[in-house]
Formats: sequence, C-alpha cells, structure tokens
Amino acid sequence: MPAPPALFAPRGTTEDIERGDVFQPKFGSDGLLPAVVTDAATAEVLMLAWMNAEALALTIETGLAHFWTRSRGRIWKKGEESGNVLRVREIRTDCDQDAIWVRADVEGAGAACHTGERSCFYRTMSPQRTAAGAARLAPAASPRT
Amino acid sequence: MPAPPALFAPRGTTEDIERGDVFQPKFGSDGLLPAVVTDAATAEVLMLAWMNAEALALTIETGLAHFWTRSRGRIWKKGEESGNVLRVREIRTDCDQDAIWVRADVEGAGAACHTGERSCFYRTMSPQRTAAGAARLAPAASPRT
Repeated sequence: MPAPPALFAPRGTTEDIERGDVFQPKFGSDGLLPAVVTDAATAEVLMLAWMNAEALALTIETGLAHFWTRSRGRIWKKGEESGNVLRVREIRTDCDQDAIWVRADVEGAGAACHTGERSCFYRTMSPQRTAAGAARLAPAASPRT
Repeated sequence: MPAPPALFAPRGTTEDIERGDVFQPKFGSDGLLPAVVTDAATAEVLMLAWMNAEALALTIETGLAHFWTRSRGRIWKKGEESGNVLRVREIRTDCDQDAIWVRADVEGAGAACHTGERSCFYRTMSPQRTAAGAARLAPAASPRT
C-alpha cells in the first residue's frame, strides 16, 4: 500500500514547520526518519527504529506501529511474528518534524526487543574499560525513568 | 579532537553485539547514529539528534551531550550558546548497538529545544485533518510519561 500523500503536507516555511499545526514530516535522503518508541505506562525507551512514508501512514491509520526494516528491505509490522505488537497511544513529532516519538503499549509477552528483553536498551555504559581501552557495558535496570 | 578509536571496539559477532559487555557502536554510512535524549527526572523525551564517533566520545568523556549538526556540518556541544547543556546521567545502547539513549539533566533555563520549549516534541498528532487530508498537530502536554 503506498502511503496516502494527502496525509503529509508539503514542507512549508520554518515557521510553518516549527509552529504550525499541519503535519509536514521530513524523510532523509534514504526516505526514512527515526522513530523512538516509549512505553506509555513506564515511559521507558523501548526501541529506536526507522519509518518510511508508508510505515508512518500505516502507523497513523492502524494504530499499530509499523517500521521499515533496513536489513530486510520491507515494511515491518512490529510484532507480526512474535505477537508483541505496539499499540499506539500517542504520536508526537519534533520541532523540525524529522523525527517521531511513539508512546505505545506493548502487547503479547510485553517484550519490545527481538532478544526477548522488554526494551532494546538493556545495557548501560559503565566506567570500566577493556585492556584495549574500549568502554564496557553493564546490565541496565528496567524499567527506569 | 578525533575520537579515540580505543573507546569503541571493532564489531564482533551478533552474539558479541547483542549479549557482550564491550561497546561496539555501529555508525551509519554517513558516519552517524541516532541518539535520543530523555529527561532523567521526568523521563520525557527531550530530543533526537545525531552523533558521529567524535561526538559520542566527547559525550562519554566530558559527561555533557555532544552531537553532530548535519545542517551546520560540525560538532555541537548542546547548550554551547544557550547555556542549556545536557548533563549526562546515563548512556545506554540498544541490542544492535546502533542507537544511543542518553538520560540527562537539562541545565540553564531547562529548555532542550532551540524554540525555547522544554522538549522538542511539543506537538502531538491529532485525529483532525486539513481539507486536503493532511494530519493536524496539537499542543502536547508536557511533561508526559
């Protein structure tokens, strides 16, 4: 399904984009924009993924988060295999309208990450370094606000 | 200052990347990865910006968020002009290690957005449409979890 062009208005002036009330999303040269998903209940950041125009339109119209998977080169309804769909509670855009914030409820087993973790962000930077100087990661508390 | 290469280990196996404890960030073909910043106190998403290796290294080493500004083509210490620096409380990475989540305190006037708003995500998608069918935006409650 091609994205309905009417859902997204053409880009206007900076004033229109920053202060207007008409959605004028800007996709990158690769046709994608980043979308951050947070848990509507806990506010935890669950994942960061990419949307093209079709994925964004599907997300708005179905109320279920859709992305563009760069590795598989296709539209991806989150949870289509696992059942852990993301039911959209709210969609926000930023000042430049080139990023999306989705507040969602995770359905199914409640895991947003393909590893089975609730959030993809399950590791935190530690002050430890390897012998070669690389930063070490440690398990992150979850959920964390 | 070039990013110290030692801080970032070379990419390993999928198991290393997803389950390891060594930081192996993946930058895109443009040398950038997306970084989402949340307010450490309220958990609100404040902004989404881009880091190259140098910006990420500076963020880790100084404890103040640095980005790469694509419009100006240079390293950007957030708040360098406004005084609204972002003091890093925690840095997380995701399963693929190709995105960053920074939990930070906003200093200065407390506005993360260049428009003066606390968060760049100050507008939410409404169910309203323009006559041409474009989605309308409405002011978002802030902070919101």
